[in-house]
Amino acid sequence: MNYRMILRLLCSVLRIVAAFMIPAAVISICYGEMPTFWGFIITMALMLLLSLTAFIFPAQKKTFYAREAFVLASITWLMVSVLGCLPFVIGGAIPRFIDALFETASGFTTTGSSIVTDYGMLTMGAKYWRSFTHWLGGMGVLVFLLSIEPITSGSGSGDSIHIMRAESPGPQVSKLVPHTLGSARILYLIYMFFTVLMFGFLMAGGMNVFDAVTTAFATAGTGGFALTAESIGAYSPYIQWVVAVFMMLFGVNFGIYYLVLQRQFKKALRNSELWVYLIVMLLSTTVIFYFVRPQYGTEDGLRNSFFQVSAIMTSTGFATADFNVWPQFARTLLVGLMLMGACAGSTGGGFKVSRVIMLFKALQRELKRSLHPNSVAKVHIDGESISSETIDNTYAFLVAYCLIVIFSTIVLSLDNTSFETNLTAVISCLNNIGPGLDMVGPMGGYSEFSVLSKIVLILNMLLGRLEIFPILILFVPGVWKKARN
Amino acid sequence: MNYRMILRLLCSVLRIVAAFMIPAAVISICYGEMPTFWGFIITMALMLLLSLTAFIFPAQKKTFYAREAFVLASITWLMVSVLGCLPFVIGGAIPRFIDALFETASGFTTTGSSIVTDYGMLTMGAKYWRSFTHWLGGMGVLVFLLSIEPITSGSGSGDSIHIMRAESPGPQVSKLVPHTLGSARILYLIYMFFTVLMFGFLMAGGMNVFDAVTTAFATAGTGGFALTAESIGAYSPYIQWVVAVFMMLFGVNFGIYYLVLQRQFKKALRNSELWVYLIVMLLSTTVIFYFVRPQYGTEDGLRNSFFQVSAIMTSTGFATADFNVWPQFARTLLVGLMLMGACAGSTGGGFKVSRVIMLFKALQRELKRSLHPNSVAKVHIDGESISSETIDNTYAFLVAYCLIVIFSTIVLSLDNTSFETNLTAVISCLNNIGPGLDMVGPMGGYSEFSVLSKIVLILNMLLGRLEIFPILILFVPGVWKKARN
Repeated sequence: MNYRMILRLLCSVLRIVAAFMIPAAVISICYGEMPTFWGFIITMALMLLLSLTAFIFPAQKKTFYAREAFVLASITWLMVSVLGCLPFVIGGAIPRFIDALFETASGFTTTGSSIVTDYGMLTMGAKYWRSFTHWLGGMGVLVFLLSIEPITSGSGSGDSIHIMRAESPGPQVSKLVPHTLGSARILYLIYMFFTVLMFGFLMAGGMNVFDAVTTAFATAGTGGFALTAESIGAYSPYIQWVVAVFMMLFGVNFGIYYLVLQRQFKKALRNSELWVYLIVMLLSTTVIFYFVRPQYGTEDGLRNSFFQVSAIMTSTGFATADFNVWPQFARTLLVGLMLMGACAGSTGGGFKVSRVIMLFKALQRELKRSLHPNSVAKVHIDGESISSETIDNTYAFLVAYCLIVIFSTIVLSLDNTSFETNLTAVISCLNNIGPGLDMVGPMGGYSEFSVLSKIVLILNMLLGRLEIFPILILFVPGVWKKARN
Repeated sequence: MNYRMILRLLCSVLRIVAAFMIPAAVISICYGEMPTFWGFIITMALMLLLSLTAFIFPAQKKTFYAREAFVLASITWLMVSVLGCLPFVIGGAIPRFIDALFETASGFTTTGSSIVTDYGMLTMGAKYWRSFTHWLGGMGVLVFLLSIEPITSGSGSGDSIHIMRAESPGPQVSKLVPHTLGSARILYLIYMFFTVLMFGFLMAGGMNVFDAVTTAFATAGTGGFALTAESIGAYSPYIQWVVAVFMMLFGVNFGIYYLVLQRQFKKALRNSELWVYLIVMLLSTTVIFYFVRPQYGTEDGLRNSFFQVSAIMTSTGFATADFNVWPQFARTLLVGLMLMGACAGSTGGGFKVSRVIMLFKALQRELKRSLHPNSVAKVHIDGESISSETIDNTYAFLVAYCLIVIFSTIVLSLDNTSFETNLTAVISCLNNIGPGLDMVGPMGGYSEFSVLSKIVLILNMLLGRLEIFPILILFVPGVWKKARN
């Protein structure tokens, strides 16, 4: 294990996060929020101080394997959650440490689950920072680091790929974007373009600058932190449509946009994940619309249905309506969509459409095989054959996923909250969505959980954002061994 | 596809089931229940008539592959459910066809979910038949056929193994019992021995003969139909302990008992599934006891905890207490145990302990592999290496299992019953347990579901009992093709 190289990269992350706190500090001072301002300043100072350790223990070797990348990703996300929550604690916006940590982990992991019960407590600086964590977490803080500071070593782009793989969502780093040192930069440029575009559309709808910026951040990262308890329901139907459409766009594999940029339209349209994603979204919207129409009428019903399906599938978790009181079928379908999630290579969370497709095809193959035991059928997606390692990995992901859901729900039940609350809270946090049902419904919140439950849910968010393995691997014996030849 | 051979075996099944109805008819006439008596007589006549078709279309070739075995198993179970419910309908004990079908499928699959709301409606003959379906379904009607009528063909014992595999629970037919033509007979003899032993223990506790016979049937098959709404809670603490212990015994792999008969104690004790099963049972009992002790006191609390853990893990589903009103942690833990289920090769249902062990080890291997991509680690259980086909099959089983739970829960939600009701009803039926939570709790029932929901739950029971693949395979294109060279 190359500890020094990990330290070097962790210190770079610290500097990046500190730099990104500058706008938050400026906003605090503009609005005259001195405690929040000092919260940011003290945290930034602390992070810069910590980042000096890289100079005390410089990295000699630059070799960096999958093992190092997994450990780096896990520590990075734990570190930014712990340090990123300090401005809330010091500034007094969220005085309890566990609550501030929950809110920040929820921010960076783009979950959007909130313990805030009184939005009046949040200062403007705190609101900005909260939304910004979504944006940085959405595409990934390590991917951002790669986009500005390529890590060079003897083996070319190998190191970056390990890091991309550890932090990017999906069963494998998308093959749609070439694996060059520039891929992190390309992804971030596309990401910025869409964020700015959305900001423009929101401004055109009469939103003020602050709301438009934070809403664009929270949508781009598929996060879902809102500025008020009404979430996006507080804005006009036009704004709601804009947010709904952009949520959908941010749930698409960014590789598709790259292909469109390259004018490879045919290849882009051949992506089966995209089609399944869009068709499931359309069908679910139609079905839910049928069920909620009596409640809302045609226009409101259609908007609320599409908005909620888009918000849940992309794992953003914004709300325009309290779907917790919708008919049971609509509620249950939304839970199903929570489990599926968005496309691989997007900023969205969840199990990912591509994994569902892959498992479905693997199941088909298995059925054929039990009829003809000697057949050696390969799984193909979009004309490419999927390696048995990738399928095994996806299978194991499902196993880990199920175990995490079951164990976490059992631990949460110690709080004596309802079964529906506990299960959907776990699903929602593990898939980085935000709201669940019952107590954690879109008009509810996570504030009433015990400290133990909050810790479990924070772990779920991190496991979900890093797609389980980088964190589980920390517990494999031998991973911390120093020597490696 | 050898349709004629399938027909021949189906007709044998019909004769067996008709023969097993004789005691039920005798009981009906002894108690003077003429409508029930005629219900059995008419059904028996119908079954014997149908079984004559085998003489019209005699089987020329005796070749029998996995494909035929799967189709045979699926049709057998559908057929016995439909025909086995006729005495209830004709005799008037359960006049609605869908309810009678639900009750009979629940009986044969050893689920024990009931639509009976007024136990006074059930005649003695109907009660006997209901409990007997558990006993026959527990070890399997095709396994019974194999135990009395060995299917001979050129390839020796090959055909029987395909059928055993299609009907027996567990990831693979246990390697503990030798694969001879006699293995079906050995299993049934062990099964009968334990059933008679339990009957003796129940009689010693002062139970009347009828109650002792039906309770022994329902326990042996890990079914769970009770004679009154109070389930086993209606009997003395001694009887409750006896039932709890025997449920535990019937949840053990019967191969272990075979080894004990062979005096291979060391090999029997080396079975890791047995140990995990016993340890999980012990730990869960202890934890639940801690939570329910304030409610019941020490003696009652311990008995209720052990009884309920044993009833749920073995998928029997008897009750001595209304665990639906227990603290949330105890309820949720029971749902977790529902998912795990009993040992492979037992009469119990569920996902099976051995599958959980296998998936857990496969996950460990996958974690190691993501650290050392070139390592080729094999999964070992009890010193034997597990083939990658078996692991793939178990993985695919999990995929199918998850998809079935999600889809079924969504369909059930059309009834507007609670999320907790729907999810636990599906889990309970798919794992052949019986009770769930909320509306389908141990003191509740399945009568209020719509016809559609009942059909879905019946399908779940059959999918669970046959372990999914034999039924799913019916929908694979090409399975119905006649030619096979």
